[in-house]
Amino acid sequence: MPAYATNMRMKFPIVALALEIVTIILFAVFVVYDDGKRTKPKHGHEHEKPSNETRPELIRFELYPMFQDVHVMIFIGFGFLMTFLKRYGFSSVGINLLLAAFGLQWGILMQGIWDMDGGKIKLNIFKIINADFSTATVLISFGAVLGKTSPVQLLIMTILEISIFSINEHLVAEILHANDVGASMIIHAYGAYFGLAVARVLYRPGLRNGHENDGSVYHSDLFAMIGTVFLWMFWPSFNSAIADPGFSQFHAVINTYLSLAACVLSAYAISSLVEHKGKLDMVHIQNATLAGGVAVGTCADMSIGPFGAMLIGLVAGIISTLGFKFLTPILASNLGIQDTCGVHNLHGMPGILGGLAGIVAVLKPFSLLYFRGTAAMQAAALASSLGFALVGGAVTGLIMRLPFWGQPPDQNCFDDSIYWEVPEEEEENEESLAHADHSKNKAEA
Amino acid sequence: MPAYATNMRMKFPIVALALEIVTIILFAVFVVYDDGKRTKPKHGHEHEKPSNETRPELIRFELYPMFQDVHVMIFIGFGFLMTFLKRYGFSSVGINLLLAAFGLQWGILMQGIWDMDGGKIKLNIFKIINADFSTATVLISFGAVLGKTSPVQLLIMTILEISIFSINEHLVAEILHANDVGASMIIHAYGAYFGLAVARVLYRPGLRNGHENDGSVYHSDLFAMIGTVFLWMFWPSFNSAIADPGFSQFHAVINTYLSLAACVLSAYAISSLVEHKGKLDMVHIQNATLAGGVAVGTCADMSIGPFGAMLIGLVAGIISTLGFKFLTPILASNLGIQDTCGVHNLHGMPGILGGLAGIVAVLKPFSLLYFRGTAAMQAAALASSLGFALVGGAVTGLIMRLPFWGQPPDQNCFDDSIYWEVPEEEEENEESLAHADHSKNKAEA
Amino acid sequence: MPAYATNMRMKFPIVALALEIVTIILFAVFVVYDDGKRTKPKHGHEHEKPSNETRPELIRFELYPMFQDVHVMIFIGFGFLMTFLKRYGFSSVGINLLLAAFGLQWGILMQGIWDMDGGKIKLNIFKIINADFSTATVLISFGAVLGKTSPVQLLIMTILEISIFSINEHLVAEILHANDVGASMIIHAYGAYFGLAVARVLYRPGLRNGHENDGSVYHSDLFAMIGTVFLWMFWPSFNSAIADPGFSQFHAVINTYLSLAACVLSAYAISSLVEHKGKLDMVHIQNATLAGGVAVGTCADMSIGPFGAMLIGLVAGIISTLGFKFLTPILASNLGIQDTCGVHNLHGMPGILGGLAGIVAVLKPFSLLYFRGTAAMQAAALASSLGFALVGGAVTGLIMRLPFWGQPPDQNCFDDSIYWEVPEEEEENEESLAHADHSKNKAEA
Repeated sequence: MPAYATNMRMKFPIVALALEIVTIILFAVFVVYDDGKRTKPKHGHEHEKPSNETRPELIRFELYPMFQDVHVMIFIGFGFLMTFLKRYGFSSVGINLLLAAFGLQWGILMQGIWDMDGGKIKLNIFKIINADFSTATVLISFGAVLGKTSPVQLLIMTILEISIFSINEHLVAEILHANDVGASMIIHAYGAYFGLAVARVLYRPGLRNGHENDGSVYHSDLFAMIGTVFLWMFWPSFNSAIADPGFSQFHAVINTYLSLAACVLSAYAISSLVEHKGKLDMVHIQNATLAGGVAVGTCADMSIGPFGAMLIGLVAGIISTLGFKFLTPILASNLGIQDTCGVHNLHGMPGILGGLAGIVAVLKPFSLLYFRGTAAMQAAALASSLGFALVGGAVTGLIMRLPFWGQPPDQNCFDDSIYWEVPEEEEENEESLAHADHSKNKAEA
Repeated sequence: MPAYATNMRMKFPIVALALEIVTIILFAVFVVYDDGKRTKPKHGHEHEKPSNETRPELIRFELYPMFQDVHVMIFIGFGFLMTFLKRYGFSSVGINLLLAAFGLQWGILMQGIWDMDGGKIKLNIFKIINADFSTATVLISFGAVLGKTSPVQLLIMTILEISIFSINEHLVAEILHANDVGASMIIHAYGAYFGLAVARVLYRPGLRNGHENDGSVYHSDLFAMIGTVFLWMFWPSFNSAIADPGFSQFHAVINTYLSLAACVLSAYAISSLVEHKGKLDMVHIQNATLAGGVAVGTCADMSIGPFGAMLIGLVAGIISTLGFKFLTPILASNLGIQDTCGVHNLHGMPGILGGLAGIVAVLKPFSLLYFRGTAAMQAAALASSLGFALVGGAVTGLIMRLPFWGQPPDQNCFDDSIYWEVPEEEEENEESLAHADHSKNKAEA
Repeated sequence: MPAYATNMRMKFPIVALALEIVTIILFAVFVVYDDGKRTKPKHGHEHEKPSNETRPELIRFELYPMFQDVHVMIFIGFGFLMTFLKRYGFSSVGINLLLAAFGLQWGILMQGIWDMDGGKIKLNIFKIINADFSTATVLISFGAVLGKTSPVQLLIMTILEISIFSINEHLVAEILHANDVGASMIIHAYGAYFGLAVARVLYRPGLRNGHENDGSVYHSDLFAMIGTVFLWMFWPSFNSAIADPGFSQFHAVINTYLSLAACVLSAYAISSLVEHKGKLDMVHIQNATLAGGVAVGTCADMSIGPFGAMLIGLVAGIISTLGFKFLTPILASNLGIQDTCGVHNLHGMPGILGGLAGIVAVLKPFSLLYFRGTAAMQAAALASSLGFALVGGAVTGLIMRLPFWGQPPDQNCFDDSIYWEVPEEEEENEESLAHADHSKNKAEA
């Protein structure tokens, strides 16, 4: 079975070490600590004179607590959210750590290219928050292909997705001058549709009828709730971390906080409404309760009013839950898009909703104060994010489909034991399962 | 079995959506972002002239990291603390999220009524910390009735408990001018006795001899420790978040930190002393180690001295552990108060201890500097909190006892599967249990 | 079996309560809140005049968010990292809480002795961060003897290890004027070699061939990842919390962040390289990914450059993973050092690497700005830390080996049920195991 040589020995270590060494060399050449000096005027402030004066406030140390909140979302939030699968927790939290740890280094380089000073990328707290953001796109896409990809494939996706992200981000922020403070469009919609495009290219007909490991057990759902709740709590930091200090940042906190609160009520209500006997479905609770954070992102720092934020959250919770119930099965069966975590419902549709809300918000008189873009520019930003995502994801998927990256065969999908040493269980019946699994692996080898 | 129509379809979605929509309308009418202006002088500062000047410091953005600590206590702390039950983890962390997400919105309205400016509630970081606080009362009461109530019942409790809380809070702080910075009385004692009153009214004779699911398994006890440890670590933020900036806030941090540290030692010691063969009991460790945070609340910002804080923690750990061992069984068998989480031991008695410590502390010469209330006013605040709790809880219990809120029958208490889709387990023996359970449900339907 | 009287009744409660009461008395005599005044000039600033002026900035309240990050590392990080053992989770997170709660009180006293003002230890945020640090040494050593020691033994270790730590810390910082901002030497190397010396003295030949409970199960490995990820995320706070404000602190954050990121890649690569079929080993992922934080500690606040930090992390991840794979078994079989958590690989070798990196860094021209010590003094600091650790650990081990501290017999090692009430499991086969265990215990009594 040469197409599925899942043995990672040599292949994975070489790729991982080579990437890290190349990255360190690039850092040695291009990256320095921010020294609080600027030799060029900041973009858009051409009147500002370059100066040799040290301005310690440029390192933005006051953002450090918010950086740590975002850090928790990236590593605990995304990592544990994906541990809902019964036998894929090691990969969920472990590969999440791997991809994010590499991605933030790569993000510093890719984003830094657009903002160099004297030929150097000057690292400060603002930049490491943005680096964490760039990894979020990859972790969202990871959710779409969770259980069906190898670590090597995912490292390749990380490089490509972050590189393309930084181009789109630069276009949206610096060319279109569109507003997307909480990144509904450039992170959430982008990450989701990028991942869905990859998933489409990697379509596995063999999983059409499901897989016994593509589901949760009781405790794995509780582990996932650790991720959900940390994401939910710290989302106001995500949406406000890079906002302008003062009232803009404050509005981003309040709007996100309220949108998420309203979203919880609508997600619970709709989950109960559409489920058998009115019961709640953990998949909805784990995911759709967060859609309010995604959807309010673009206009988080605008004066949409507390009730405006809550309305956005309410709608996001509804469409996200309905998406899980009705749209995900259709995508899988009709379009060949097998979206393991349902990122289309958590990041895709709510991200588009956020982009649309941003278009409406800049039209409104109450947003005049915070006006940065026109409705047309907001719409162009949304289109750009979706375009880069779909084309970039499709190309990336084609590269990931090359047969030598160690992707798992269908029957070993959603199973940690293909890439991890998994402890044998105490109980005899589980041990026998493990043995069966082991001999199955051997048979395939 | 019409009295126990646990099917939530329609009932729960309608209640949840209606509450959210009403709340959004109320927000649209009454709630605005704090703009840093005040059209009326702050209560007690009548000499202050209203001014149209913008004072950005009024939004209290410097409290944001403390707000996030409190947020973690509410959503991770309380949520996971209650996951100790073997088959009730979904409800513990999931319904906790639902109640807190709705409660904070309701709390903003109820607390805001007492502090409006130009007919508007001006939302800032200080206010969202207080909104989180108001939800804590509900989550404490939730612990008393955990496993025996439906989501609809609990939403009703949330509305009533927070509404009554805000009346008592206003009375204690603005009329009696009593000190309760860490809320031993107005949150912990209030929440506990409110919940115990509800539990008394909802007494279930059928659970007199226990219930097979009213207990923990190994892993559920570890999930609960996530809650315990986050509560323990961030309690200094809880007790100091709304203290006066400067030395008061600093004292609240140090006193809470030391009280909790001392409390751990006494809780462990007494747990070992009273248990079979000197073993430690997880229930004590999960709960009584936190009693020091509760008990030091009222006088956290006073100059009680580091050793004074430690003495309070030491005593709190002792009485809390003894309460779990000896008092909880008596309350259940003799008074008909079935207190699932033992909130009487964690929040009730330590809350009263905190209130009493506050009375003593204001008598002491060392507290002169921070004097805000007299001993009589402190005592009145404690009495008021207990009175509102017991009467409010009893009335709320009567409303919750109405037969159409979907409460579970005795045999389905402490079981997620009555309100949640629960995944089937891998192991055959657990599957057979699940099937038996399923057919049992069908038989009841 | 009088040498193994594991029944803790009386013994443990008396020790714990007596320690707490003595501590409270010492606090009453020696410890006060920092009032922002200083009656003596700060060490090394003899020109500073004592003044009665209140300087609120001396309480360092701006460090509070970093303190909370460190707090999370101590209580969640270390506590859950050790829950990887299948039947020792209660002890891991529970005894971790006990030792840290006592240790921080003891640390305040022991570290405070060296910095008294008017005969008093003035408690501020800086001091409670340092108190948390002092407990880290104990928790590292705890990892070496995890599963093989009683709570009473561990309380004794806490007292002795922190007392000796504070002497070494004073020597390194105030006499040698060596730099160790992130404590590679004085915490990590010290804690590891102290624990290894204790483990050597407590060598158990009966565990030479392993123990059935000395391993993980699937879910226990996921619990451990909670600890790993929180440690990983907040390590920049650990290494920068007590750095000089401004660029030093900023460099410490950036260097630690980058070192950890690089370390993840090398730990994953080497884990896959050395394991069967190229699979990843959870033990490596849980531990070696953190070695970068340890190793960059000593020179975290120096201008080693972003790529310098990454190189340190890369090397740390490699040697740590190789240590787990090849060195730990040799230490156990040839030297009689049974290191349960492999602290030699996570804290020992990376700590020495950090000390060596510090020696090199002070030689380099780029560190001139932040120069505090000479290479000789850095080397002396490393030697001092190792010397105090080995001698102190050996003496402490001898005291812990006295036969009346309730240490577990070999067959009950790595088993919570000897010191904890453990819930019976649902499944019949586990129940029968539990019964067997119970009767075994009875037979031994």
